[in-house]
Amino acid sequence: MTDGFVSRHIGTDSAAQARMLETLGYESVDALVRAAIPTGIQQTSSLDALPVPASEREALAELRALASLNRVNRSFLGLGYYDTVTPAVITRCVLENPSWYTAYTPYQPEISQGRLEALINFQTMVSELTGLATGNASMLDEGTAAVEGMLLARRASRSRSNVFVVDADALPQTRALLASRAAPVGIEVVEADLSGAELPPVLHDAFGALVQYPGASGRVADPSVVIAAVHAGGGLAVVAADLLAMTLLTPPGELGADIAVGTSQRFGVPMGFGGPHAGYLAVRDGLERQLPGRLVGVSVDATGRTAYRLSLQTREQHIRREKATSNICTAQVLLAVMASMYAVYHGPEGLRAIAARVASHARAFAGLVRAGGLSTVHDAFFDTVLVRVPDARDAVVRAHDAGLLLRLVDGSTVGVSFDETTEPADVAAVARVLTGDPTTAATAGETEGLGLPAALARTSAFLEHPVFASHHSETSMMRYLKRLADADYALDRGMIPLGSCTMKLNAATEMEAITWPEFAGVHPFAPESDVAGHLQLIDQLERWLAEVTGYDSVSLQPNAGSQGELSGLLAIREYHRSRGDEGRTVCLIPSSAHGTNAASAVLAGMRVVVVACDDLGNVDLDDLRARIAEHADALAALMVTYPSTHGVYEHDIAEICRLVHAAGGQVYIDGANLNALLGFARFGDLGGDVSHLNLHKTFCIPHGGGGPGVGPVAAKAHLAPFLPGHAFAQHAEHASLELGTVVHGGPTVSAAPYGSPSILPISWAYVRMMGADGLQRATAAAVLSANYLAARLRDAFPVLYTGDAGLVAHECILDLRELTQRTGVTVDDVAKRLIDYGFHAPTMSFPVPGTLMVEPTESEDLAELDRFVEAMLAIRAEIVRVASGEWPVESSPLRHAPHTAESIAVDDWSMPYDRTTAVHPVPTLVRGKYWPPVRRIDQAYGDRNLFCACPPPDAFE
Amino acid sequence: MTDGFVSRHIGTDSAAQARMLETLGYESVDALVRAAIPTGIQQTSSLDALPVPASEREALAELRALASLNRVNRSFLGLGYYDTVTPAVITRCVLENPSWYTAYTPYQPEISQGRLEALINFQTMVSELTGLATGNASMLDEGTAAVEGMLLARRASRSRSNVFVVDADALPQTRALLASRAAPVGIEVVEADLSGAELPPVLHDAFGALVQYPGASGRVADPSVVIAAVHAGGGLAVVAADLLAMTLLTPPGELGADIAVGTSQRFGVPMGFGGPHAGYLAVRDGLERQLPGRLVGVSVDATGRTAYRLSLQTREQHIRREKATSNICTAQVLLAVMASMYAVYHGPEGLRAIAARVASHARAFAGLVRAGGLSTVHDAFFDTVLVRVPDARDAVVRAHDAGLLLRLVDGSTVGVSFDETTEPADVAAVARVLTGDPTTAATAGETEGLGLPAALARTSAFLEHPVFASHHSETSMMRYLKRLADADYALDRGMIPLGSCTMKLNAATEMEAITWPEFAGVHPFAPESDVAGHLQLIDQLERWLAEVTGYDSVSLQPNAGSQGELSGLLAIREYHRSRGDEGRTVCLIPSSAHGTNAASAVLAGMRVVVVACDDLGNVDLDDLRARIAEHADALAALMVTYPSTHGVYEHDIAEICRLVHAAGGQVYIDGANLNALLGFARFGDLGGDVSHLNLHKTFCIPHGGGGPGVGPVAAKAHLAPFLPGHAFAQHAEHASLELGTVVHGGPTVSAAPYGSPSILPISWAYVRMMGADGLQRATAAAVLSANYLAARLRDAFPVLYTGDAGLVAHECILDLRELTQRTGVTVDDVAKRLIDYGFHAPTMSFPVPGTLMVEPTESEDLAELDRFVEAMLAIRAEIVRVASGEWPVESSPLRHAPHTAESIAVDDWSMPYDRTTAVHPVPTLVRGKYWPPVRRIDQAYGDRNLFCACPPPDAFE
Repeated sequence: MTDGFVSRHIGTDSAAQARMLETLGYESVDALVRAAIPTGIQQTSSLDALPVPASEREALAELRALASLNRVNRSFLGLGYYDTVTPAVITRCVLENPSWYTAYTPYQPEISQGRLEALINFQTMVSELTGLATGNASMLDEGTAAVEGMLLARRASRSRSNVFVVDADALPQTRALLASRAAPVGIEVVEADLSGAELPPVLHDAFGALVQYPGASGRVADPSVVIAAVHAGGGLAVVAADLLAMTLLTPPGELGADIAVGTSQRFGVPMGFGGPHAGYLAVRDGLERQLPGRLVGVSVDATGRTAYRLSLQTREQHIRREKATSNICTAQVLLAVMASMYAVYHGPEGLRAIAARVASHARAFAGLVRAGGLSTVHDAFFDTVLVRVPDARDAVVRAHDAGLLLRLVDGSTVGVSFDETTEPADVAAVARVLTGDPTTAATAGETEGLGLPAALARTSAFLEHPVFASHHSETSMMRYLKRLADADYALDRGMIPLGSCTMKLNAATEMEAITWPEFAGVHPFAPESDVAGHLQLIDQLERWLAEVTGYDSVSLQPNAGSQGELSGLLAIREYHRSRGDEGRTVCLIPSSAHGTNAASAVLAGMRVVVVACDDLGNVDLDDLRARIAEHADALAALMVTYPSTHGVYEHDIAEICRLVHAAGGQVYIDGANLNALLGFARFGDLGGDVSHLNLHKTFCIPHGGGGPGVGPVAAKAHLAPFLPGHAFAQHAEHASLELGTVVHGGPTVSAAPYGSPSILPISWAYVRMMGADGLQRATAAAVLSANYLAARLRDAFPVLYTGDAGLVAHECILDLRELTQRTGVTVDDVAKRLIDYGFHAPTMSFPVPGTLMVEPTESEDLAELDRFVEAMLAIRAEIVRVASGEWPVESSPLRHAPHTAESIAVDDWSMPYDRTTAVHPVPTLVRGKYWPPVRRIDQAYGDRNLFCACPPPDAFE
Repeated sequence: MTDGFVSRHIGTDSAAQARMLETLGYESVDALVRAAIPTGIQQTSSLDALPVPASEREALAELRALASLNRVNRSFLGLGYYDTVTPAVITRCVLENPSWYTAYTPYQPEISQGRLEALINFQTMVSELTGLATGNASMLDEGTAAVEGMLLARRASRSRSNVFVVDADALPQTRALLASRAAPVGIEVVEADLSGAELPPVLHDAFGALVQYPGASGRVADPSVVIAAVHAGGGLAVVAADLLAMTLLTPPGELGADIAVGTSQRFGVPMGFGGPHAGYLAVRDGLERQLPGRLVGVSVDATGRTAYRLSLQTREQHIRREKATSNICTAQVLLAVMASMYAVYHGPEGLRAIAARVASHARAFAGLVRAGGLSTVHDAFFDTVLVRVPDARDAVVRAHDAGLLLRLVDGSTVGVSFDETTEPADVAAVARVLTGDPTTAATAGETEGLGLPAALARTSAFLEHPVFASHHSETSMMRYLKRLADADYALDRGMIPLGSCTMKLNAATEMEAITWPEFAGVHPFAPESDVAGHLQLIDQLERWLAEVTGYDSVSLQPNAGSQGELSGLLAIREYHRSRGDEGRTVCLIPSSAHGTNAASAVLAGMRVVVVACDDLGNVDLDDLRARIAEHADALAALMVTYPSTHGVYEHDIAEICRLVHAAGGQVYIDGANLNALLGFARFGDLGGDVSHLNLHKTFCIPHGGGGPGVGPVAAKAHLAPFLPGHAFAQHAEHASLELGTVVHGGPTVSAAPYGSPSILPISWAYVRMMGADGLQRATAAAVLSANYLAARLRDAFPVLYTGDAGLVAHECILDLRELTQRTGVTVDDVAKRLIDYGFHAPTMSFPVPGTLMVEPTESEDLAELDRFVEAMLAIRAEIVRVASGEWPVESSPLRHAPHTAESIAVDDWSMPYDRTTAVHPVPTLVRGKYWPPVRRIDQAYGDRNLFCACPPPDAFE
C-alpha cells in the first residue's frame, strides 16, 4: 500500500501504459526509457539517501512532528516581516484552491482574465499607495526589488557614475543583497548616513540612491531632501517604502521619488520563515518601459471589449537574451493575489485603520518605556521603536524566555516592531520585560494621536476604484474570487502541456502543511532554537536533492529558477576569483538555450559567447571547440540544458563537459528539464559542476499563476562554499554528501536566509511519498507520455527533433512552419483554437519559432492524452479545410478562436463555419466546457495604449 | 475591531442600509424592526450568557484550546464507526470547497447536475454493494436508517402483525433507536438471538426483522435462514450490512433480503465523534416507491438529453403531511458525496483490497491472541474479534493507558475492531495488551487467506460503471470534482433566496475547525476523559442556544430539523405520560404549517387536527378555540411556526399559547424562522414549551447540497428531562439555565449521543464571533433586506402577506397567481427563467401554491439585492410581452428557460426572441455568467421511467 501515492501522482496506470507501449512498439516502460536515454549516462547507483516512501498519512504525520519542533513566538522583530491576519476567505478560496494555485503564468491572456484582474488590482494598489504612476505585477521580495531598482536607476539615469548610495538605515538584508549583486555588474555601493542635516556629497555623484521609508530603525523622516540631492547629480531616487505606512504618510511619488520598492507581505501573507511573499516595484511616469518583471496592462479583444494581458513582453529577459537588463522571470503571483485581495477586502478605510492601530501601539509603547525610565532613539514612530536599555542582549534573552522576539540592534539598543496582530496586552508585555516593572499595563500607555510627523501626513486619497469598496463582506469576497477563478484555466480543468514548464500534479497532501501555523507563523530571523523543525526539513530536502542530482551540496535560498541560475554562475565567478582567475569571465551558451541563461550570465558579470547548434538541435562540437580555443584562459563556464531545450537526450554531453573542464571552465547544467532524467541519470555524474533545479517544475510546487517558484542551486564540493550565504542564517553550515557539512559563503541572492521556506514542505512531501523508485517511475511515465503524443501526432504535425530510436525525452516539438507557410494558419491560431477545445496551449515558438512544444508530464492520464490527440487531429482537419480554400484563413474558426459564448449569441452570424463548429467542435465538449471570457486579445493595442491600473467599471459595458 | 466579523457576515454596510431605509421610509434599522415586530413580544433582557464577541483569530485560538482538550487515541471500538483515510483531494475539493458545501438541496435540478451525479454514484454504490435494486440518496445515520427500514417493512409487509424482530447482535445504538421509535407508532420490538441453529418462532409472526451482517460481535454468518423465516410469515427482512464487508461477502440482495440499511462512514468520512455521516437504505425491486428520503433518478431535459433530478417527490413528507410515513427531510448529501467519491477514487479493486487488508488484520490478530493463550468467541472474522480475557475491565483500562480504545463487551470479553488505518504494529500492540506478552510481534500472527467463510464469499462483480474506473489518479479526481462543481449553482455564485431556508454565509473561519484531527478523529463512544474538548464545546453551545431562545435546556442530539421536531413532540408525549395523561394525543397544526410538522406528529404517535388560518395567513383564533374545545382532554400540543410560514409576525401568539396551556396542552414553536427573531424575541418568552432550531439555517452550518443538518431541541425545564437521552452519552447531565444541569432521559433519536458533533464548531464559532449584539444586528439586517425587496418588487408582484405597518419579517411572498391566470406564465417558468439571470429560484409554491417566497438573509449585500430586483423586474417586463401577445407563452423565453450555451449554438433558431435575450437578457450577465448544463428537465418522464443508478456513458452523447 506504500505504492498508494505513486499511483495517485502518475496518471497512467499499468493498463494504460500497456496500450501506449503497444502504440510505440516497446515491451515495457523501462525498455522505452532505456532506449531513449544514451546508455553511457544512465546512472547505476541507487539513490540510497532517500528513505523508503511514506504513505500520504505517514508523510503528514512526519510533517506534523517536524512542525512541532518549531516554536511560534510573538515576533516584534520587524525588518520587513510582520505577523498579519490572512482573511480566512482568502486562505480558503485562493491559497487552498487549485483553481488559483495550479494556474500557469498568464501568457495566454484569454484564459487568464481572473488572475490578470487580481494582478491589476495589485498594481493599482502599489501604484496608489506609493504615489507612483506604474507598479509591476510583483517582485520576488523586497531585497531583490531593491536590486532591480538599483539596476533600473543605472540604466535610466543621466549620470555616468557607477556609484549607488544606500541608506545606512535600510534593511540589513537589502544592503547585503545590493552589495552582493552590485559587484559583478561593476556598481560601487556606498553606504551612507542619510539621517543627518548634512547629506553626504556622494549623493551628487551617484546614479542613484536608496532611502528606506520609514527607516529600519523606525525613524520616520521626510526623504525629499535626499531625493532632491540625488536628482541634482542626475541620479534617480529609489525609496523602499512600507505599504501599510503609506496609508498614513505622504507617499514617495508625491515626494519626488522615481522608483519605489518593497514588500506586500504584511498585507495578509504569512511570514512563513521568510517567504514566499510578493515584493513590489513602482516607477514614475516615463520609466514604465524600463520596468523589469511582469506588467499587466489593459487592452481590447477582437470585439473591442476591454481585456487584460501582460504588457510590453519584449522587455522580458527571455526575449532580450544577452541584452537583458534583468534576469527576473518568475513573479510571486499567488502571493500578489493574496495581498491585493487583502486590500480589496479591507478597502482604503480598513487599511488606514489597521495602520493607525499599529502606529498607536508604537506610540503607546514608547510612552510606557519612557514612563519606565528608559529612552527611545526617535520621537516619531510608525511601527518600530528603538529603546535604549542597560543590557540589550540580556533584554532580548529575557524577552525570548517570555515568548517575545525582540530585535538586538546593538549592545544597548533593542528594536520593537508592532503589527496588525498586536494587542494592548502584547505592548504591555514587551514594556514589562524592558522596564522590569511588573505593574506596567497597556492602559498606562494610551495616548492620543499617532505620533507621526504632521508634515508627512498623507492627504491624498487612494484605492478609490470601486473594486476596493465592493467586496468587504465575506460573501461578496467569496463570490468575487469564484468569479475570477471561473474565468481562468488551471490544472483543475485539464492538461497544460507546456514544454519546459512541467505542469504536473500539485497534490493536496503536499499542499496541506504550508498553512499550518508552526510553519507559516515564523519570522525569518527568529532564533535557531525556535526553528528546529524548519531547519531539519531544509536539511533533509537539501540532502535528498543532492542525492538525486549527483551533487554534493544544495542551497534552497534562491526563490526562483532565475535566481538559482544566477547563484550558480556567481558561485563559478567566486570560485575562479578565489583561485586568482579574475580573467575567467566568458560564458558559453548554446544558441538553443533559454534566454534567461544569457540574462543571468550578464548579471553575474560574464560575457556571453554563443555556441552554434547542429541541424538536430544539439551543441555543435566543432563550434564548441572553436569557441573554447578562441577564449582560452578567459573561459569561465558553459551553460547547457540537459536534456536539451529541444527535448532530446544528446549523446555528447560527457564530451562537452570534458572539453570545458579541460580548458579550465566550469559546467553549468540548467535543471529545467530534470523531469526527464530523475532516477535515470544525474547532472553531477554527467559532468556538471553546478545546476539549478526548479522545485515548481520537477518537485511539485504549484506554479501559482506565475509564482512562487523555488530555484535551489546544487553544486559539487569545490563550488559548495560559494553557494549563497546570508548574514541572518540560523545555520551557516549546510548538508554536504561528500563533506558532511559545508559553510555556504557565497553572494546573498534572497532577502530571507532560506528563500521561500514555507512552501518547501510541498517538495519535501513529494520526495518523501515517492521514494527513489517512485521518482524514477514518474520520469518514465513522463517520457512515455511524451513519446505517445509524438507518435500519435507525428503524421499530422512533424516532430522536429528526436534522439536515439526516434524517441523524444519528456516533451516534443510539433513543427507547424510548413503548414503556416502553405495555409497562413499560425501557431497562435492553433494555440487559441485549442482553447475552444478545452486546452491550454503548449509552449509557443520556443525553442524554435513557428512550433509548439508539448510536455504532458507523468500526471496526465491516457483519457486526457487521447483527448488532446483528438483536439490536435481535429484542428489539423480544420487546417485542411483552410488549405482547400473552403475556409479563407481570415474567416476560419482558427483565426477567430477563441470563441466566447457571447460570440455565438449574435443573430447575424456571418462566418463560413457554424456556431457548433465554433464552440463544440467535438461532441465531448458539450459537458463541462470551459468558456473563455474574452476573444483573442490585441497585444499591440495594449502596448501602444499602455494602461496598467484598474480600468473604470464602465470599460466592461 | 471586534466588530470585524459582524461586518464581514452582514452583507449590507451602514451606507447601504441608509439607502435601503430611505426606500422604506425609516430612520434606522432598529426603528424598522421595532415597527415590524409586535411590541408585546419584544424581549427586554439582554443575552447575558453570551460572551463578548471574539475576533476570527481569537475564536480560532479558543477552538484550538478546546481541541487540545481532546485526546485522539487509536480506536478499536468499531460498532459502526471506524477510522478511515479521507483522500486529501476529497477533503480539499469537497469538504473545504464552498462550491460543494454551500449548495442547497437539488430541488432545482437544472442547476444541481453536479451533486446529483455524485448522489447517483452514491446510489449505484449502495445498490451494487448491497445487491439490491435501488438505494436512496442517503439517510441520517445507520440507526435512523434502521428505523426507516422497520417502518418501510411495516407498510410493505403482507403481515398484519405489529411485531418487529431485532437481532440481539445488532448494534446497541440501533436497538435503542428502534425501541425508542417503535413505541409511539405502536410497533412491538422483540429482541431475539438469531445466531442459534433454531430460530425463534416470533420470526414467523412478525412484519419484519432486522439482522446485522456481520454482527456487532463480529460474527460472520449467513443471514439467509433468518430471511427465509421472516418471509415465511409474510414479513420483510431488513439486513444492516457493512458496506466495506460487502466487497468480500455475498450481499444481502443476493441472499433474499428486501431491505438493507447501514452507514457509509468508513468510506472516507471522519468519525467526528459520531457524525455527520451518510447512512443508507436500499430496497429490492418493487419497493422503490416505498422508499423514504431523497431518491435521485435519471430523466431527460427539454431537448431529450439525459439529466438527473430527484425522483418521486410526491413521496416526500412535506407533500403528504399527516399521511406521511416518514418525517425524513434532510439527507447527508455532503457526506454521501464524500463516500461516493471515495468509491470512485478507489474503484472496486481498491475497495476490495482495503477490505481484504482489514480482514487479514482481524485474522492475524486472532492468531496472535490465540498463540498468547486466549480464546476468541468466533472463528470467522471480517473486522471484529471478540476475545475472552480474565478481566475485561482491566484490559480495557490498560489498553486506554497505552492509547488504545477497546470495547468492553462484558466482564470477560473485549471487542477489537480493525479498519483501513490499522497497521501491523497496531495489531501487535493490542495483542500485547491482551496477552500480556511483550514479545508479541505482528509478524508472528501473519496468516494466509482472510478467515471468512468460503460459502459467503462474494462472487458477483460490482461498481463496473466506468466512473468507478476513470478517476483513480488525483489529477483526474480533482478535475472530476471541479467539473461537477462547475455544473452547480451554490452560494459562491450568488444569492439563493429560498424562503424558510435561510441560505446565509457559511464563513471560512467557522468551517476551519471541522477538519482538525482533534475534532474529526474521535470515536463517538470514546471515554469521557478523551473528549473533554468536545463536551465543553457542546455544553457552551447548549447554554448559548438556551439563552437566545429563552428555554432552559437544549439537546444537540437530533441530526436534522425533522428529528429535532420529532424529539420535541416525543418529549411532550413523554411528559403527558409521566403525568398519567396517556390520552393526550391530539396535535393541532395550522393549515399553513410546513408538511413536516404533521409528519413528525404522526411519527410521535399523535393525531393531527388542522386549525384554519384567516385571510392574512394567521391562525384563526375562533377556529383554534373550537378545536381546543372539541378535543378538550385529548389535547397534547399545538405546533406553530413563528414568525409564521407566511413570513409575518402574528400578534396573537401570546394569546394562542395561553389558550393551549389553559387546555392542558403544550406549545411547540417551530424554529424554522428564528432568523427573523434572534436578539429581538425569544420562543420561551412567547409561551413556547419546546422548539427545534436549525443550526443549518440560523446558525450557519452549510446546507451541503442537502445535508448535513443539525436540529437541536430546546425546552422549558418541565420538558427538559424528556429531551433525547443516549445509553452511550459520556455526559448524561446537560446544562440547564434554570436547573444548573438536568439529565436528558427521553427517547433516543440519533445513533450517536451528540448527533453530529464534528460540525458543531461552526455554530459555536458563529455565536462566539457575533455576540449578542451581532446576532441582533444580523436579524435586523435580514428583516431590512426582506422588506427592501418587498418594497422594490411590490408593484410588479403583489406581496401576499404583511404584518404591522405593512412590513414583512425576514421573507416575503410574491403572488404570481393573477399573472399566471392572465398569461399562462407559471411560477416554474419564473423560477427557471431566474437561472438565465444568474439566480437560484426562491421557494416555489410554499406555503401558498402559485407564489414565490423570497428570503435574502442578512448576508447579501445591496448590489446583489439590486441585481435580483433588476432580474425580477426584467422578468415582469417579459411577462408583459407574453400578455400583449408578442410572445406566445409556449414559445417565450420564460417557458423555454433555462437556456444552455448549447441551445444558442444551433443554427436554426426559431424562437420569437433572439439569442441574446435568451442568455444575456441584462448586460451585467456577460461577465461571469453561470451556464446551466441542461435545459428544463421533464419530471414526469423520470417518474414514469424510474432509473436510479448511473446511466451508461453513451446516454450523454
